Amino acid sequence: MQYELYYWPGIQGRGEFPRLVLEDAGADYADVGRDKDGIAKMQAVMAELGVPFAPPFLRAGDVVVGQTAAITSFLGDRLGLAPRDDGGRFAALTIALTIADLVDEAHDTHHPITGGEAYETQKPEAKLRAAGFRDRRIPKFLGYLENLLAKNGQVLAGNEISYVDLSAFQIIEGLRYAFPKAMAKQKIPKLLALRDTVAARPRLAAYLASKRRLPFNEHGIFRHYPELDG
Amino acid sequence: MQYELYYWPGIQGRGEFPRLVLEDAGADYADVGRDKDGIAKMQAVMAELGVPFAPPFLRAGDVVVGQTAAITSFLGDRLGLAPRDDGGRFAALTIALTIADLVDEAHDTHHPITGGEAYETQKPEAKLRAAGFRDRRIPKFLGYLENLLAKNGQVLAGNEISYVDLSAFQIIEGLRYAFPKAMAKQKIPKLLALRDTVAARPRLAAYLASKRRLPFNEHGIFRHYPELDG
Repeated sequence: MQYELYYWPGIQGRGEFPRLVLEDAGADYADVGRDKDGIAKMQAVMAELGVPFAPPFLRAGDVVVGQTAAITSFLGDRLGLAPRDDGGRFAALTIALTIADLVDEAHDTHHPITGGEAYETQKPEAKLRAAGFRDRRIPKFLGYLENLLAKNGQVLAGNEISYVDLSAFQIIEGLRYAFPKAMAKQKIPKLLALRDTVAARPRLAAYLASKRRLPFNEHGIFRHYPELDG
Repeated sequence: MQYELYYWPGIQGRGEFPRLVLEDAGADYADVGRDKDGIAKMQAVMAELGVPFAPPFLRAGDVVVGQTAAITSFLGDRLGLAPRDDGGRFAALTIALTIADLVDEAHDTHHPITGGEAYETQKPEAKLRAAGFRDRRIPKFLGYLENLLAKNGQVLAGNEISYVDLSAFQIIEGLRYAFPKAMAKQKIPKLLALRDTVAARPRLAAYLASKRRLPFNEHGIFRHYPELDG
């Protein structure tokens, strides 16, 4: 069966989290949003199905699943990139959803008032929100992940690399791009070691070196605006 | 087995979503945060387990699960309040996570800059954020749910009332409390009918009339600040 991933073209955004799972597993998938007429196809499928509120979403036969962490959890279970026992599975889902919250908060640093208007319309508020994000939220979230690694071993849940470790890789990459100065101050050696382990996995290394891996840019979730990095 | 729900006492907050599932199912559960010394117990368990980033979380034997929608999905599966086929299960999870996003956005109307400081320190920004929430986000999210009901029938996912319908009840209650004027303008007859169906379920009706159902207040997620209701 071919998986169909639907996400906006041109940005990594939230779509990159399920894409990393598909790439690491070597799964057969169509990246529909990047097709010619991909956006129109995506909008037609959303209107037909009703369930996805917004991209990303995945179609896998009769299953349609939206919401980043739910997609990665679903794929992790199907593709052997998730713990197998319920204790590990629900730990992984909990952590993945916590990472999704961190992604939301990263987004809101540049859109603290409304997602319906450009960053440039809300710069003073963005500066205020970004300060709290840098000073309190990044250390709190990354300290939480670092603590989990101290408790659980070299991976965040279960005994082997799972989808949630791939998501941890992506959040480190995104935050380093957007907030290089703030990230240089974090003391997260275990998390950075996990990031390196993930980046070195053969299929992911090939993906990351390919043109399929888009560069970060100022249209996505993780945006580098120096004025927001303190 | 007795379920252990952990959440802050004194507010409905995010804990109310799993609580509604437990109550509707007539499950045996301890509402640990509301015990004498409940907060200390909760913090001790969080420190021991590592996995929950924040309340609410649930302990069910060897499983520990945090994040509102993940808890309700887990409980729905275990307690017969979820669709049984994968198509329905993942539709329910997707919708539950979308409702959780709406809860986050409702929260951020009164804390647009930082959750670390009181509403009173961020009132001008709150007014701006609340305007976009009322004018664009409430109609978009509730219109999405209304459309799902038009497609799927009288419930949001599957063929019978599930945990996600209970979550829809709660978001309607919360938004009506916080934004009565904005909510009076919404055209969502199917969603309001679902709300009434849920409220009339015998165990839930008993719960809602009991002292266990706390009133909304200005310490929770849904706060009634008239200046934010337009």
